[in-house]
Amino acid sequence: MKEYTIDLEPVGLRIITNEEMTILDAAQRAGVEIAALCGGDGWCGKCRVQLMQGNLSPMSEVEQDILSEADKSSGIRLACQTRATSNVKLNIPPEALTTAQRLQTEGTEEPFDLDPMIHSFKINLQPPTVHDLRSDMLRVQDALEVHGIRHATISFPLLQTLSNTLRALHWQAQVVVRNCTEVIAVLPQDLPIFGLAVDIGTTKMAGYLVDLKNGLTVSKAGFGNPQVPYGEDVVSRIAYANQHPDGAKLLQQRLVDRLNEMIHELCRYANAQPEQIVDSVFVGNTAIHHLFLGIPVSQLGTAPYIASVSDAVERRAVEIGLAISPAAYLYMPPNIAGFVGADHVSMLLATNTVIKSRMRGETIVSLDIGTNTEISLAHDGRLLSCSCASGPAFEGAHITNGMRAMPGAIEKVRIDEGTAFYQTIEKAAPIGICGSGILDAVAELNKHHMIDPNGQLRPDAPGVESEGRRSRKYILVPAEKSGTGGEIVVSRKDINEIQLAKGAIRAGVEVLLLEAGISSDEIDQFIIAGAFGTYLDLENAVSIGMFPVLPKDRYQQVGNAAGIGAKHLLLSREKRAHVDELIRGDEYIELTAHPEFTRIYVDALQF
Amino acid sequence: MKEYTIDLEPVGLRIITNEEMTILDAAQRAGVEIAALCGGDGWCGKCRVQLMQGNLSPMSEVEQDILSEADKSSGIRLACQTRATSNVKLNIPPEALTTAQRLQTEGTEEPFDLDPMIHSFKINLQPPTVHDLRSDMLRVQDALEVHGIRHATISFPLLQTLSNTLRALHWQAQVVVRNCTEVIAVLPQDLPIFGLAVDIGTTKMAGYLVDLKNGLTVSKAGFGNPQVPYGEDVVSRIAYANQHPDGAKLLQQRLVDRLNEMIHELCRYANAQPEQIVDSVFVGNTAIHHLFLGIPVSQLGTAPYIASVSDAVERRAVEIGLAISPAAYLYMPPNIAGFVGADHVSMLLATNTVIKSRMRGETIVSLDIGTNTEISLAHDGRLLSCSCASGPAFEGAHITNGMRAMPGAIEKVRIDEGTAFYQTIEKAAPIGICGSGILDAVAELNKHHMIDPNGQLRPDAPGVESEGRRSRKYILVPAEKSGTGGEIVVSRKDINEIQLAKGAIRAGVEVLLLEAGISSDEIDQFIIAGAFGTYLDLENAVSIGMFPVLPKDRYQQVGNAAGIGAKHLLLSREKRAHVDELIRGDEYIELTAHPEFTRIYVDALQF
Repeated sequence: MKEYTIDLEPVGLRIITNEEMTILDAAQRAGVEIAALCGGDGWCGKCRVQLMQGNLSPMSEVEQDILSEADKSSGIRLACQTRATSNVKLNIPPEALTTAQRLQTEGTEEPFDLDPMIHSFKINLQPPTVHDLRSDMLRVQDALEVHGIRHATISFPLLQTLSNTLRALHWQAQVVVRNCTEVIAVLPQDLPIFGLAVDIGTTKMAGYLVDLKNGLTVSKAGFGNPQVPYGEDVVSRIAYANQHPDGAKLLQQRLVDRLNEMIHELCRYANAQPEQIVDSVFVGNTAIHHLFLGIPVSQLGTAPYIASVSDAVERRAVEIGLAISPAAYLYMPPNIAGFVGADHVSMLLATNTVIKSRMRGETIVSLDIGTNTEISLAHDGRLLSCSCASGPAFEGAHITNGMRAMPGAIEKVRIDEGTAFYQTIEKAAPIGICGSGILDAVAELNKHHMIDPNGQLRPDAPGVESEGRRSRKYILVPAEKSGTGGEIVVSRKDINEIQLAKGAIRAGVEVLLLEAGISSDEIDQFIIAGAFGTYLDLENAVSIGMFPVLPKDRYQQVGNAAGIGAKHLLLSREKRAHVDELIRGDEYIELTAHPEFTRIYVDALQF
Repeated sequence: MKEYTIDLEPVGLRIITNEEMTILDAAQRAGVEIAALCGGDGWCGKCRVQLMQGNLSPMSEVEQDILSEADKSSGIRLACQTRATSNVKLNIPPEALTTAQRLQTEGTEEPFDLDPMIHSFKINLQPPTVHDLRSDMLRVQDALEVHGIRHATISFPLLQTLSNTLRALHWQAQVVVRNCTEVIAVLPQDLPIFGLAVDIGTTKMAGYLVDLKNGLTVSKAGFGNPQVPYGEDVVSRIAYANQHPDGAKLLQQRLVDRLNEMIHELCRYANAQPEQIVDSVFVGNTAIHHLFLGIPVSQLGTAPYIASVSDAVERRAVEIGLAISPAAYLYMPPNIAGFVGADHVSMLLATNTVIKSRMRGETIVSLDIGTNTEISLAHDGRLLSCSCASGPAFEGAHITNGMRAMPGAIEKVRIDEGTAFYQTIEKAAPIGICGSGILDAVAELNKHHMIDPNGQLRPDAPGVESEGRRSRKYILVPAEKSGTGGEIVVSRKDINEIQLAKGAIRAGVEVLLLEAGISSDEIDQFIIAGAFGTYLDLENAVSIGMFPVLPKDRYQQVGNAAGIGAKHLLLSREKRAHVDELIRGDEYIELTAHPEFTRIYVDALQF
């Protein structure tokens, strides 16, 4: 089968396709998320790409229908309908990129100066002679002085190859310098250099390869967290680590192995070698952070749940087995507490929560919904944080027919006169309900008074079947329409799970407001991050009381802000300095020890 | 067999003995070199020790003879004649310690302030509660602030155990801080902490364990360099490393393994655990330095013999496999050039060559004789260095009946009317000649005109046998008196080897003097370091022209100055700062490229 390259602009990424693969498939395989609401059938018309150079397959009937004459004359095509017939260069308009990337291109990020930890310099050295016996190290140091880099040290791992590399490159090299003080790599002169940013979520991991010379993301990849089989949530993983000899080591090893696969993929799509990755930033919650770095978690597993490390951590990536440039560092931003970790800090950084609050006098709530939901309140120069155990219901776990957000999962629900209308991911036959679907379903049941304020399904409501009071259920999809052959239901227990989850989140917000001495209508911005936070229906979340009632424009759904924060930390030394300052004086509120928490939580459970 | 402990003062060392072992044997096994010129027969009376506490075996006849009444009444005994019959405490008078230690106690070292890189603090922490959720790291950092240590980082390897250690110690700990900035160990409160200083010679290694709180050496050990089987000199080891796949790795591994054995021994004698060793300094020549650190040596093996690294190197000891405290650093002072390494720099430091020269306006020659002899000349604010290939003759290699300085080696020779009188090490039957012996033999042959100025044995000289002009030999020991049953001779070739060696050393000195524009009688001090340099007969060395003719008091034989320099670097941050400054502006003279070298060398070959 013939293979071609596709240069994607403005992403600046070269990917590989073949004569049978659509541009959409090729882009998605390379981690570039082009919008395709219809799942590639052609009717949504979102996956528009513009041909800049090369040849594509003839226009399909669908394209003839959907594209305007103006589109056609400017080379617009639908990625799902088109194949490359030569090496091509394509432009992807901003509106064709999905949420995470749209965030970047649409400017919800504040601009910042590109000033990475890493700089590189071309040097042309004179080879040594009997009249110039300077050591190889000194020769490089002297050449860097010309570029204003004085007394640079040479990173130890690099010393192990420096002499041979300089000779192999015939003394013409690109010298990679970290923080203007330490030489960490010597490469051929014209090779691009990259940074790696990874958000290690409890369930999913998102990785980005970033060109450090221009700040552009050259490839993206999403992988599952390989620790899931050892515990769905961090609490059970901590238990696993503490109860098995070498359990923590195993969890670390699995993670590092998977990250190395990710690095391999990211490099393949960017046509790069791992040796070109000369810096890296990782974010994750405190437990993930500790497990990743090989720091003990036993004290995280028992009250009062103490983090071992709170400061930002810098160390050589190779020391924990990451296959990037041998002297490259990894950086992880600080943790706030046992359950408010570096990923939340990264999200606060990406959303500029603290700076905005201080500069504009705004009151900002920022939260990241997951099994644990981390919430911060920035108000009047203070930063208050807490963590609430919202449970895994929003990830589809502990729900009768719950599932992760995968094809076939019901993601949207509307109930009209007792009958459910729903939408599944990729329009596949329904096989279960994911987080946003169960949230919708419960909100709709509540809206139509099919449940009482305690969450009890009313026996007389349409669609509700009863096998005794405790086992009532609402039939969302009858067996004959389900992809599994069995009915898909919302049970009393499911409603309880959602109650506990939304109650915990709301109670967390309310305790922070109470501590700050303000009421919810003083919130100027309410920022919701994370995958579930991006897909949830805001109106429904407010209607079940998970979020306070606020004008809609005060809410902001920002996608994977933790990952974006990681990229910022890769590209800006100022951001790294800021992130330390950001959490200084942070007030962490341990909810379980707060005198008002139980009362507020019980109130928040109600519909 | 019953075992007892011996506390040796003022060394501050506890060693183990048994009812059958003499005090001398026990001390020597523990690496404490008590003087014993007679080899333990008792007649030299040098190995005097003073009983402070406990019981010893009854006085021997030899002791009754040799010791005065005053000695006897103050508890003086001879270590070679005495056994412990209980746990004892002994005082070793300075004069009973051999050269290396005498150097320390007799004050040829300039005094300096004890200010090691390492300090330690006792902290008593409050355990965390729900009202005090600071991370473990922050809790330690806050406690250190009280001691004036602000914003200390916690060393990464320590983070991997910190939380568990603090809890195991019930929050009462000794915190070990490096350079007032980095916490590198957490230990029980009253445990002593140690530093390790090692001089890695091409043939032998000397290790010292030093108490970092008081600067005292608590144990010493001497081991052979395990790289010897892969090449007697560094040139052949470099060749081995370059010609065998993984050759360099193997040489590194052998060395690290042997050093770990040494660490084990040092700890055993000091009743310490390797975890208590929290700092380390290593010195060695440039090739040893590179092989030890895993730095390439191929460029060291071919002209113009370039060092990869010249700056001082600091890295974690565990990274190359040394079994000391996991976060402890190793430090190696700078190298001057490919064949003037960190050991020579350490020797310059220990002898205060540069400071003395600058402060007192003195002209000082310092040299360390080995297969390569490194020579420095400090004069008028300048420091000139060179390295000369003096060959292995002074280590007994390439000599017809040559051997290392071991029991049975002829170490002193005097010729009287053609007959040789000699002394062997430990008075054993002669089996060969070591470096100082062959130097003496050649000098005596020359003194008695038994050789001509070109080093040719005169056929009519007594004791000279001839089997043709090229194979004349002088019979030093006839077969019937030899321990091997064969005669021990000095051959024409042996004399040549000594000629080449002494010529190279003298030529090196002369080239440095020429470069400085001075003559040899302007030398104020002539410092000779190293084992051979300590044992050689100065008068004979001068008589064969190896050293210039100077008043005898200008010569100084200083023993293992490189090892002493390593100890200084362990105990003084000022010394570490000074060592960088010391070699700044150093002028290295490549002898083979010097226009006058050949002429001077040829002259220096003559007797």
